[in-house]
Amino acid sequence: MQKNDRTLIIIGGKEDRSADKVILGEVARRVGSGKLVVSTVAIPSNPDGLFEQYEKAFRSLGVKHLFKLEINAREEATRDSKVRILDDAQGVFFTGGDQMKISSQIGDTLVYRRVKEIYEAGGVIAGTSAGASVMSETMLVDGGDEESHVIGGSARMAPGLGLIDGVIIDQHFIERGRMGRLIGAVAQNPKNLGVGIDEQTAIVVERGNSFYVLGSGAVYVVDGTGVSYSNIAEEDLKKTLSIYDIKLHMLSQGDRFDLIERRPRQMKGRAAEKLPQKEEEQMAPA
Amino acid sequence: MQKNDRTLIIIGGKEDRSADKVILGEVARRVGSGKLVVSTVAIPSNPDGLFEQYEKAFRSLGVKHLFKLEINAREEATRDSKVRILDDAQGVFFTGGDQMKISSQIGDTLVYRRVKEIYEAGGVIAGTSAGASVMSETMLVDGGDEESHVIGGSARMAPGLGLIDGVIIDQHFIERGRMGRLIGAVAQNPKNLGVGIDEQTAIVVERGNSFYVLGSGAVYVVDGTGVSYSNIAEEDLKKTLSIYDIKLHMLSQGDRFDLIERRPRQMKGRAAEKLPQKEEEQMAPA
Repeated sequence: MQKNDRTLIIIGGKEDRSADKVILGEVARRVGSGKLVVSTVAIPSNPDGLFEQYEKAFRSLGVKHLFKLEINAREEATRDSKVRILDDAQGVFFTGGDQMKISSQIGDTLVYRRVKEIYEAGGVIAGTSAGASVMSETMLVDGGDEESHVIGGSARMAPGLGLIDGVIIDQHFIERGRMGRLIGAVAQNPKNLGVGIDEQTAIVVERGNSFYVLGSGAVYVVDGTGVSYSNIAEEDLKKTLSIYDIKLHMLSQGDRFDLIERRPRQMKGRAAEKLPQKEEEQMAPA
Repeated sequence: MQKNDRTLIIIGGKEDRSADKVILGEVARRVGSGKLVVSTVAIPSNPDGLFEQYEKAFRSLGVKHLFKLEINAREEATRDSKVRILDDAQGVFFTGGDQMKISSQIGDTLVYRRVKEIYEAGGVIAGTSAGASVMSETMLVDGGDEESHVIGGSARMAPGLGLIDGVIIDQHFIERGRMGRLIGAVAQNPKNLGVGIDEQTAIVVERGNSFYVLGSGAVYVVDGTGVSYSNIAEEDLKKTLSIYDIKLHMLSQGDRFDLIERRPRQMKGRAAEKLPQKEEEQMAPA
């Protein structure tokens, strides 16, 4: 693998695991004949056979070398036996659950350093739902979706894994009414671009500086550079947000976004032709 | 009443009817000692004693002259007996239900003309949910919230009552994930400003040219003037929307918006001091 191939696949949740599997197919394609490690660190004790669902999906997509990385306590993330599971991996996939579990249990451990090495050497790091949020330097923390529109809703942030800089990710985006909290998070410091990803939808970040959209939903990019007023610094966390002059892009499959220039554009030519068929909503798991 | 007092109170749904009643209180305040007509034309056969809920709420707010306007078929809206209910009314309140029922049953009838006369003479016309959407010249039609993000989601439009021009209203906004369809509706013709109103939240439109926000949620204003690209004209209604360079304002109580200049600003001085306490979510009906 080559440094320039490094890729993040950041998924808004509920990606299809049993029918056309467009998004997981992209993970599998980039892992190729290499080794893929699926980590369930976000969720204890593997409910509903979550790992086995992914195992089945990835095997059907041709992934031959598949391993499970289960971490139920921070201490485990420093053990050699766990770190060795990541040896020679081409890709790491983080399942959903609780993003604070991921960051608090592997942040700054040997496991985390190995994940970062894999990425920087040109590997693919993918994550869905909680596994998506945790990619950024600062992450929105779950809980209180009904409070998305108040100042306190955007105040629930924590340090993430920092695989991508200058971006705040939110997932299950339109489904859980999270526009308010993402706008608020951006207004806290407009150096961060807000990226809200719908379910069954992903962004594929190439070389850390641009992404394209994959899947059936939309991706909302919130750019706060031009914001002329916000009440985000007020002390009353229950006050409803008020923020003027946000720039918003609504993107879908076929769109690409330049994270440096902060500009969207349509994909053209071969790159566009290579896009898979759209993931059909009716085929997705509930 | 004076022509310059004309007011629309456009409510995002689920306004409080039993506790602090901030939004209904504003309707009552503007009706004063005048006559208020509550119309259930949006919903047949008055389910759950809907009219009686409003009657109780408005009476507790000091409205003395309260009448019910029930219309179950278009033919009724041309009857003198129905039109007479509106005689000398200072305000008309449209309940929720189906906006197409309102427009198809009273559009261009004697009842409609009388409502418009009341408004133009300086009255107050209020509506919640379906009763909110129907205020504009072109309205988004209910159904298919799960399709908000596709081109077809914004294609579901119909002619409304036209009490306010140059604006498309959407309601239950963040709760039902409707950002996509409102952005799409604006992209169809950016001459229209999109106004998405959360539940327990209202805009109070004064003289047809500016509004302020009332209630506990947010109001999202979508301005498409600067849109540089959109795929809204594509034929495939199932394609996910893609629209670049939307201007978005997130407003809350304490904000005012100038519909002519398309600019938000904070309310100051006496107007701000006169705002009621925020409607508390925990006190609202389910």
